[in-house]
Amino acid sequence: MTLPKNANSNTPPTERTAPLADLYTTLQNENNSKFTIESIEEKLEQNGISPDEPRIRQYMENIQKTVKDKYSPISKVTFIELLQDPNTEPLRKALATDLVIPSFQDFKKDIEEIYTQVKPNTDGKPSERLPHPEAQDPPAFAVSICTVDGQLLQLGEHNIQFSIQSICKPINYAIALQENGEDKVHQHVGLEPGSEDFDQGGVLNEDDLPHNPLINSGSIMCDALIQPELDNKERLEHVQEIWEKLSGNKEIGYSKEAYEKEINASDKNFALTFLMNQRGAFPEGTDLSKTIEFHTHCCSIAMSIDALAHSAASLAKFGVCPSTGIRIFSHDTVKNTLSIMLSSGLYSHSGEYAFWVGMPSKSGIAGGLMVVIPHLMGIAIYSPPLDQYDNSVRGIDFCERLVKKFNFHVFDSILPEDHGKKDPRKKKVG
Amino acid sequence: MTLPKNANSNTPPTERTAPLADLYTTLQNENNSKFTIESIEEKLEQNGISPDEPRIRQYMENIQKTVKDKYSPISKVTFIELLQDPNTEPLRKALATDLVIPSFQDFKKDIEEIYTQVKPNTDGKPSERLPHPEAQDPPAFAVSICTVDGQLLQLGEHNIQFSIQSICKPINYAIALQENGEDKVHQHVGLEPGSEDFDQGGVLNEDDLPHNPLINSGSIMCDALIQPELDNKERLEHVQEIWEKLSGNKEIGYSKEAYEKEINASDKNFALTFLMNQRGAFPEGTDLSKTIEFHTHCCSIAMSIDALAHSAASLAKFGVCPSTGIRIFSHDTVKNTLSIMLSSGLYSHSGEYAFWVGMPSKSGIAGGLMVVIPHLMGIAIYSPPLDQYDNSVRGIDFCERLVKKFNFHVFDSILPEDHGKKDPRKKKVG
Amino acid sequence: MTLPKNANSNTPPTERTAPLADLYTTLQNENNSKFTIESIEEKLEQNGISPDEPRIRQYMENIQKTVKDKYSPISKVTFIELLQDPNTEPLRKALATDLVIPSFQDFKKDIEEIYTQVKPNTDGKPSERLPHPEAQDPPAFAVSICTVDGQLLQLGEHNIQFSIQSICKPINYAIALQENGEDKVHQHVGLEPGSEDFDQGGVLNEDDLPHNPLINSGSIMCDALIQPELDNKERLEHVQEIWEKLSGNKEIGYSKEAYEKEINASDKNFALTFLMNQRGAFPEGTDLSKTIEFHTHCCSIAMSIDALAHSAASLAKFGVCPSTGIRIFSHDTVKNTLSIMLSSGLYSHSGEYAFWVGMPSKSGIAGGLMVVIPHLMGIAIYSPPLDQYDNSVRGIDFCERLVKKFNFHVFDSILPEDHGKKDPRKKKVG
Amino acid sequence: MTLPKNANSNTPPTERTAPLADLYTTLQNENNSKFTIESIEEKLEQNGISPDEPRIRQYMENIQKTVKDKYSPISKVTFIELLQDPNTEPLRKALATDLVIPSFQDFKKDIEEIYTQVKPNTDGKPSERLPHPEAQDPPAFAVSICTVDGQLLQLGEHNIQFSIQSICKPINYAIALQENGEDKVHQHVGLEPGSEDFDQGGVLNEDDLPHNPLINSGSIMCDALIQPELDNKERLEHVQEIWEKLSGNKEIGYSKEAYEKEINASDKNFALTFLMNQRGAFPEGTDLSKTIEFHTHCCSIAMSIDALAHSAASLAKFGVCPSTGIRIFSHDTVKNTLSIMLSSGLYSHSGEYAFWVGMPSKSGIAGGLMVVIPHLMGIAIYSPPLDQYDNSVRGIDFCERLVKKFNFHVFDSILPEDHGKKDPRKKKVG
Repeated sequence: MTLPKNANSNTPPTERTAPLADLYTTLQNENNSKFTIESIEEKLEQNGISPDEPRIRQYMENIQKTVKDKYSPISKVTFIELLQDPNTEPLRKALATDLVIPSFQDFKKDIEEIYTQVKPNTDGKPSERLPHPEAQDPPAFAVSICTVDGQLLQLGEHNIQFSIQSICKPINYAIALQENGEDKVHQHVGLEPGSEDFDQGGVLNEDDLPHNPLINSGSIMCDALIQPELDNKERLEHVQEIWEKLSGNKEIGYSKEAYEKEINASDKNFALTFLMNQRGAFPEGTDLSKTIEFHTHCCSIAMSIDALAHSAASLAKFGVCPSTGIRIFSHDTVKNTLSIMLSSGLYSHSGEYAFWVGMPSKSGIAGGLMVVIPHLMGIAIYSPPLDQYDNSVRGIDFCERLVKKFNFHVFDSILPEDHGKKDPRKKKVG
Repeated sequence: MTLPKNANSNTPPTERTAPLADLYTTLQNENNSKFTIESIEEKLEQNGISPDEPRIRQYMENIQKTVKDKYSPISKVTFIELLQDPNTEPLRKALATDLVIPSFQDFKKDIEEIYTQVKPNTDGKPSERLPHPEAQDPPAFAVSICTVDGQLLQLGEHNIQFSIQSICKPINYAIALQENGEDKVHQHVGLEPGSEDFDQGGVLNEDDLPHNPLINSGSIMCDALIQPELDNKERLEHVQEIWEKLSGNKEIGYSKEAYEKEINASDKNFALTFLMNQRGAFPEGTDLSKTIEFHTHCCSIAMSIDALAHSAASLAKFGVCPSTGIRIFSHDTVKNTLSIMLSSGLYSHSGEYAFWVGMPSKSGIAGGLMVVIPHLMGIAIYSPPLDQYDNSVRGIDFCERLVKKFNFHVFDSILPEDHGKKDPRKKKVG
Repeated sequence: MTLPKNANSNTPPTERTAPLADLYTTLQNENNSKFTIESIEEKLEQNGISPDEPRIRQYMENIQKTVKDKYSPISKVTFIELLQDPNTEPLRKALATDLVIPSFQDFKKDIEEIYTQVKPNTDGKPSERLPHPEAQDPPAFAVSICTVDGQLLQLGEHNIQFSIQSICKPINYAIALQENGEDKVHQHVGLEPGSEDFDQGGVLNEDDLPHNPLINSGSIMCDALIQPELDNKERLEHVQEIWEKLSGNKEIGYSKEAYEKEINASDKNFALTFLMNQRGAFPEGTDLSKTIEFHTHCCSIAMSIDALAHSAASLAKFGVCPSTGIRIFSHDTVKNTLSIMLSSGLYSHSGEYAFWVGMPSKSGIAGGLMVVIPHLMGIAIYSPPLDQYDNSVRGIDFCERLVKKFNFHVFDSILPEDHGKKDPRKKKVG
Repeated sequence: MTLPKNANSNTPPTERTAPLADLYTTLQNENNSKFTIESIEEKLEQNGISPDEPRIRQYMENIQKTVKDKYSPISKVTFIELLQDPNTEPLRKALATDLVIPSFQDFKKDIEEIYTQVKPNTDGKPSERLPHPEAQDPPAFAVSICTVDGQLLQLGEHNIQFSIQSICKPINYAIALQENGEDKVHQHVGLEPGSEDFDQGGVLNEDDLPHNPLINSGSIMCDALIQPELDNKERLEHVQEIWEKLSGNKEIGYSKEAYEKEINASDKNFALTFLMNQRGAFPEGTDLSKTIEFHTHCCSIAMSIDALAHSAASLAKFGVCPSTGIRIFSHDTVKNTLSIMLSSGLYSHSGEYAFWVGMPSKSGIAGGLMVVIPHLMGIAIYSPPLDQYDNSVRGIDFCERLVKKFNFHVFDSILPEDHGKKDPRKKKVG
């Protein structure tokens, strides 16, 4: 499967002079005729755009060379000339407030309100399957949002690195799809929701395959399809590189402590794996122990909540990173990944969640929750205390409140205009 | 739960003179200055609109009074005067080709092509649980489509009345929601996909409730919530009336033979019902045998495929009948119904179907399949031979081909513009 | 299946004069030459034989006519003449201490010791599925033993009548066998241990039959085979008559309260029954509701613990009542019944019990426990508090202690002579 | 757990002169006053006693020194003197026909008749899980019987060595009991019949332990308790030595081919083992892979059918080898082993087999079947074609016919004397 060329390379290199002149005029007017670097910075902040974004930083550095300081006026010619570079499109859209969330400050206030409502919810307990340092006291509660246009919103302790655990599953499924094609992948893993509880029977489906790619057995199966000829160090680096691209080049770490604790508690994964092998589910020649170790390595990948939100935004943008404009997954891969996240992303709570919340999501037992709202944004929530289904208590709470306020449910298009849910994609009137 | 006022009553009674005058001019030009009743009929036919639609028929009768015959020109004044009645909006939209599928003839050709491809597929066997007359030889294959604007497309033997069987389940769930509210309903029925196979265990969920409203146990539970104080004759008539409204006042029948054959083979339903009662799942005071009989009555409701497609279109229009404009279910009820149809509408094939096809649907063992594409259309397919999962073989085949040609999958919004799938909502360019 | 002639009819009517003369001499010597009715009464008491046994009572009445009072010597001629009647064999055996437990007083002491050890065990809770009067406070604890020679031992509140509940199952299985033959019965019910928990799956076996005759489904199946053409009143009387014969004509009652409480809580039995019917397990034409009602009637049969112990003794004597000598079941019927009681008589604790205790037994949720030690005795224990498996806590405790003291385990024949377990069948030496 | 001293060491070294003199006289008479070595040999053959038995061979060698040839008369003095050695007891019993089967030739004829009836039964297929050489064409059918007095009967191809497979399970359970005590063993393995089918759920019992010692999981658990500190070579030799003792020092082999084929197909055993480890079922520090390898080694132990029958006879003699008189297991160990063999020895057919056949038995997928009739004999049957439950078709057929002819069912004591079943323990009358 070959990826299409990067999204932004499709932007036609047409004449942009006229609209840029208009934009300059508008910005002049907005700033009482004194349009400066400070004006740009204010505009960016107001729209949730970070000046550290690589393509914006480049422009800012270039423009700084043309003026004395940040309070000096920017000339129309300079403004237009520098903005003709297609790479500056993110900046241009920000300056023109031509962004997916036009009233970002309003949106921010709403999200802050939800955060404040959820924070006192101290139900649940952190997983005992992970090393203690992961569980802070009082438990952390961080939310990070990144829109498809790179608008950022961060609340709570967003500097913590945590292991992604099962959140690796949809990405590894996507990698397996991208590298093997959907036919090959789905010869080895099913697509029905299903349990892998040994006490209940039906651990595998009627074709003797794992039920779907987001339960342990199905994820181990996908992992078996990812570059099996490489050694596990190389495979891990390969997956980390993909996360790095998804996250807009943020730091992708690894929790050795999580790996070591988990690999020593992998009995259930081994049981599932040997059962699958007995039933002939794996590709010929699969090295079972190596596959389980690789799976556990991927679960032990660690990152900040900002990196996770940014990666979710790359899925929301159908495989293209909002800040670099680089395509990582094809549209089809993302479509399949979101389909299965919608039906099976929250363990045994998936059906209820799909019904009441209706956003493609995936949780991990370290307390992470990754949410994708196609065409709009990625959300990451981190709060270690888990409910009975091993989902982050505050993560679920936050999402339930989110879809009560905003039309983010996959079937909210069915509701009438006057239903009372907000649509942040819309320009504020008046 | 009270329904909002009918959708079309929201249409503001503003001045429409100017646009109607423009419309008249356009139609004049299209018809070489001779705009007649014949011109209207041709326009309607071209757009798939039936002149028998009640609101259109009324207009046609009125306008016939003003002209000599169908070849006589219609005057501008008459045209405008009669079209000012808000009830004529469907006609106005048809004449203006302001319809959800603007190029209906192109769409029709595509559908006919799929129909022709699917027809030779003679796999599967009709259900043995139903009386023989239901299974024709060679097996019937009919498709009926009704858009949210009432555009109709009918292929195959669309005059057969067949029993809807499990297709009654989403509608009965919707009725239960409408009459009891979602809180009450979901105290008695869950929302996770799940099996009710006695050989596999887990017949009920961990709360001792049926897994969801679209399996037998869950549907029986919803039925217990529909007017339990009435006798079963009244309850059946109540449900039939709702179908009548959904279908735009088409004939809603009943198969006594299907009922008699099935009530005598209801052992599994009785087993499920008594098990649910043992676990305390039913509302206090539920009459178990009466509930099962009512359930079987609802399964034995019979109708034409056109009535079924029209009913599906009422769901696609969020609860409003395309031809009468009358609201039957609230937006919320429809949203919930479509959510559960997407995850659980095709028996044990639901997950695969949601992934590959991605349209809220429900099948019945008589061979019916009801499909809802929100904002766009309802589809009904009828072909009795069933696959291993008890779904109509041709029904599934048709839907799989449909989503390969059109962007009807719930996640097709993720695909790029140039992906190759058609969008019939778009005006043909050029 | 025709029963063989009564066991005692096999006793040859030969000359008994000589041995009776010897017996008279022995008894004379034992009683210092003064052998009286009082001597007989003492001898009977010492051996646990009741003078109320019909065949003994007859003799006692006859001999009383020949002497002045109970202290008057009995003449040799009279003694011999009256004892020639074959019906007096039980008396003759008692006087000769030719009984299965020769040292009955020693045995009694051992049993009393176990009773005393078990009595303080107040664990468990009476079943909530039965009417309250069944559960006394403090809970009753009664033990009754009846040997194959009619020796009786009674401890605790042995006058209480309690409903036998599941203890009806082995007897109804025996009746079904006796009336239908084992081939016919086992076309409808299996022979493997197994659960009928709807949460675990595998409610029926791979032939779609109930696993065995001692679980609810299997017992309902056996009940369907008992005189289905009679009405339930007649069927109940039929079963009660058999219990009456098994118990040596003791009173067999019925708990209307138990029936009414249980028939209103029969949902699980209905679920099992409808499931079995769906799978075609029942004989053609079975009336399902009537069968469940008959089953519940049989569970509501009530009797004293003495009647139950006596019935168990009739099984220990391979189908012949110890006190009347009448055969009720054939050897084959009893063999099959004891086989299945050994493997499946104690719900989900059956395997553990068979291993550690090893006596064919059946428990009921009213707190009864019937134990059969072939060739030796029947035991009945009554104590309502139940353990997690619905077996009487004190019943299990008593049996576990019993097999530690006596060689009653089905495999105790494997232990060496010097193992330390007592064998009450043996004459005390010295 | 210490074993009691050898059984024959209990024989009091008292004067045996008188009875030996009587025996000599009897033998003289039987042989027309000419009692020779030939007479002894004939007597042994007639009673099924092999002159190769070590203790008999010794005597024969000694007596040969006292006479010219096998046709020379043996003197009374010599006869008595040599027979005073307690080790000659087996010979003395054979000469006195004081053996558990007094009419051995009659018994042999009956067994041969059954063998002939079963031989044409060619149903079933050899296991595909074993190397091909194990399955002969036409399939072998061998029966070997060894009584507790060492009487031997051999039919069919009894020289084939075959791998014992699951027949190792009861012996390994016995070893685990003997070396750890029953308390320790049953902290790790349950006692209820039960399945370990991953498709059905309930792979482990409610205490998260394997259901019983005779299914794979339970046997692996017992193996984990056998000398875990030794290496697997030593452990295998240890188990082989015990089989050697049980078999009366017959050759105990090993099938490397079976081991290699099976260890490469151990996925299900690995799955079971990891699942048990996840649930904490194993003793602390258990090496899982080593345990599975040891388990597979034990399954690959190979021996002749005579060795297997002899071993079964050692169980029938409560742990003492009939030919060496050496005790290998305690009475308690044997009792427990036979209890579990009765309830769980034939895979999913165990309950039916216990009911209809009622002899403690264990089957293996190579086609072996070991049967123990306590106090009487061990039987081994070998015929590779298996039925749907993986039991030898002819093995089952043979046993079913055996219990129809002989009173070998554990509950046959319940049948009346005149039931028609033979008792080979009885002396032929007349």
